[in-house]
Amino acid sequence: MTAPAIILSHTQMGENVGAAARAMKNFGLTDLRLIAPRMEWPNDRAQMLASGAGDILDRAQIHADARAALADCQLVLATTARGRDVTREVLTPEAAIARLRQASDAGLKTALLFGGERAGLDNDEISLCDALITIPTAPLPQIKESEIKAGSLNLGQAVLLLGYEWLKSADATPASRTRPSIAVPAARQDLVDLFEHLERELDAGGFFFPPAKKGAMVRNIRAMILRSGLTDQQARTIRGMIVALVRNKYRGNA
Amino acid sequence: MTAPAIILSHTQMGENVGAAARAMKNFGLTDLRLIAPRMEWPNDRAQMLASGAGDILDRAQIHADARAALADCQLVLATTARGRDVTREVLTPEAAIARLRQASDAGLKTALLFGGERAGLDNDEISLCDALITIPTAPLPQIKESEIKAGSLNLGQAVLLLGYEWLKSADATPASRTRPSIAVPAARQDLVDLFEHLERELDAGGFFFPPAKKGAMVRNIRAMILRSGLTDQQARTIRGMIVALVRNKYRGNA
Repeated sequence: MTAPAIILSHTQMGENVGAAARAMKNFGLTDLRLIAPRMEWPNDRAQMLASGAGDILDRAQIHADARAALADCQLVLATTARGRDVTREVLTPEAAIARLRQASDAGLKTALLFGGERAGLDNDEISLCDALITIPTAPLPQIKESEIKAGSLNLGQAVLLLGYEWLKSADATPASRTRPSIAVPAARQDLVDLFEHLERELDAGGFFFPPAKKGAMVRNIRAMILRSGLTDQQARTIRGMIVALVRNKYRGNA
Repeated sequence: MTAPAIILSHTQMGENVGAAARAMKNFGLTDLRLIAPRMEWPNDRAQMLASGAGDILDRAQIHADARAALADCQLVLATTARGRDVTREVLTPEAAIARLRQASDAGLKTALLFGGERAGLDNDEISLCDALITIPTAPLPQIKESEIKAGSLNLGQAVLLLGYEWLKSADATPASRTRPSIAVPAARQDLVDLFEHLERELDAGGFFFPPAKKGAMVRNIRAMILRSGLTDQQARTIRGMIVALVRNKYRGNA
């Protein structure tokens, strides 16, 4: 398995290359290639924005054109911001990454191609790609013509989102988990002790009224406590609270 | 359905608030709230980075503390970069957004809470939240202690990724589609005409050898052409190519 190359074509701003490298590092990508960068290289602004991902910049390949940059790649997907009048398959980021992941797992060399800040990718570059990717963004019907450019994602953001999908596609983190901690979930005996302590004091306070409803009321209270998933410490804390409340009551009555 | 509020606590850099607003606009979020911002407000750097999302900054609510900022919220999820020693449920961005989407669809007011650049959220703020979110990033075992800070996402990137998941959770874009275009898929008759034209000329050129294998060879060629999903124009272009190639052959023989 090799991770996809990130290939940036005709990039104008070092900041964007640096942000792309930073995003790559966050999500486990290392193979950065630049096609005909429109800036000084090496680039100080890129190094500054890369903050901790300078090694990715140092190892970046520089190529004269897309043909050279893509020479060893067996599956290439290109990001595009807007519609084109060619009939090409267009993928969501998630579907694109699933395809890349599958190819990478099969040992193929894959790549994601990103166009320059102004013009994006030209048709010759697009013709070398297997499919296109469009990142969904909110419709901006109210936006002025002059703001349309601002309505799309910048280069660093696009690399970030696809890198995130890449990591996510192999990420085994469960959707929901509770942090491991020194706290130990309460054993059933602790809970039963708590239930009985609470119910005894509630009974003493005349809480269960009318008496015929006591069974249902107890069941409701127990369900509520069980649902909260107490630790043993929390169960003890609640028993301490009950003791404190009861003590107050007797004081009040004294 | 109301979209979640984006609540930034103790933010120090206007750039990050601006980038957050820009990311919100991209993904259809509008309700920005700041808890005790540690910078001038309104903020010039924020306006600059918001580029086209200035209206979100202009309408941002400013609150003295989390209690005030979250007062009307019924489900609050907080982003955290690293482990904490409290026993709280931790969600992936996708699972978190699914929960927010469900609550929003049910008419509840929801929020995503983000901590400041240095210290993140404090324990009091965390105690007001229903669950935590951790964005998965690559393990960085080789990283130096001094670089660990750079290993996590910045505030603008965190808002971007959660905004992206929010839009995606309601996005009806099919995973794969072909752009609408004036190009029309070839009708079966066009393809059959192409097949027969090609096979006739291949036959004339002695391509089908040995003759016993012709049937299988024809089927393979047809399958290959069908798989490429030609338009009518492309089918015509290929027939033109065949004509041109055949013309050359006769020239060569002349």
